[in-house]
Amino acid sequence: MGSEMVLELPLTPPGIAPVDITPAIRQLVEEAGLLEGCVHVLSRHTTTALSINESEARLMDDVRQFLARLAPASDPYLHNDLHLRPAPDGWPGGWAAWAAQEPRNAHSHLLSMLLGNTLTLPVTGGKLALGTWQ
Amino acid sequence: MGSEMVLELPLTPPGIAPVDITPAIRQLVEEAGLLEGCVHVLSRHTTTALSINESEARLMDDVRQFLARLAPASDPYLHNDLHLRPAPDGWPGGWAAWAAQEPRNAHSHLLSMLLGNTLTLPVTGGKLALGTWQ
Amino acid sequence: MGSEMVLELPLTPPGIAPVDITPAIRQLVEEAGLLEGCVHVLSRHTTTALSINESEARLMDDVRQFLARLAPASDPYLHNDLHLRPAPDGWPGGWAAWAAQEPRNAHSHLLSMLLGNTLTLPVTGGKLALGTWQ
Repeated sequence: MGSEMVLELPLTPPGIAPVDITPAIRQLVEEAGLLEGCVHVLSRHTTTALSINESEARLMDDVRQFLARLAPASDPYLHNDLHLRPAPDGWPGGWAAWAAQEPRNAHSHLLSMLLGNTLTLPVTGGKLALGTWQ
Repeated sequence: MGSEMVLELPLTPPGIAPVDITPAIRQLVEEAGLLEGCVHVLSRHTTTALSINESEARLMDDVRQFLARLAPASDPYLHNDLHLRPAPDGWPGGWAAWAAQEPRNAHSHLLSMLLGNTLTLPVTGGKLALGTWQ
Repeated sequence: MGSEMVLELPLTPPGIAPVDITPAIRQLVEEAGLLEGCVHVLSRHTTTALSINESEARLMDDVRQFLARLAPASDPYLHNDLHLRPAPDGWPGGWAAWAAQEPRNAHSHLLSMLLGNTLTLPVTGGKLALGTWQ
């Protein structure tokens, strides 16, 4: 009926960083021996997103610029006012320790919501059945 | 092979209202006795959307403000010109009755399309396998 | 466990063109004889997207205008500088032949990513279990 696999990605550079995980998903499909069915993919961070498109280098730069304009990191966001937020319960070292490591990343949360976090991809004949340029 | 369950939500306040339905979905997964698999979630209104993120109070205010700027309710939208739209066929009371109850909500439709209406979430060991902050 | 069906759409007019594929999906569900389960839909082009909303004529014009403002076709995009991009390996006729047919469509890629490419729809009693206006 299916199996779950977790894909860990290396740290991305600062800012908006498109990463092509298609080869990794193809490999997981192969390792799982899935011939016919679907792969459901969930991005488990709140500042990451999943999207299907063409991994053309200049287009990926357009994506970075477009998203950066859509939700500028430099805009004022309530979520970034760390001094007005409590630390999560039981954070080791308390508020100061939490605030010291907490990034000001409201814009990334917003972009993650716009782009979306889950995808469902068809597999036929053991291969991802994506379009030519996807 | 699966079962369908319908979750009815209480009316939300006017405007853009983020509602955390994660606890309700966890409960449905438990009631369904689902141990391993996926939950597919569909938002069945055309002015609502589904998104996965961190339910932090100030971030939810950022979300409301960001979406309100992205598609301002006060912008002119063709869908809001009720006098130029026919009532749905057979509406009880005819056009006037329909127009009297029809909200001017084009911006909500647009935001619903951007955020998306369907999610697929993995379940392992009877629990939603979301990320730490989701 | 499921079957895959491919839906080919006629060419759309130039620009942003909403197409209601719900009737076609309903027909595929019927042809497949699916009574209970899910339909997973993937848009296999990198400049198309899938969205669930109300197919009201004036709202569809709002959608076209909203998306055109969000990522204007006339904005400068790196992906549209064809003279700075190589042709895909082995393109028949080489770079000139590729460039002659390659559209300047970066904005469509960006909008496709925002709207999303995959949907999962529930089927109960042989029917798509969408909301009243979807």
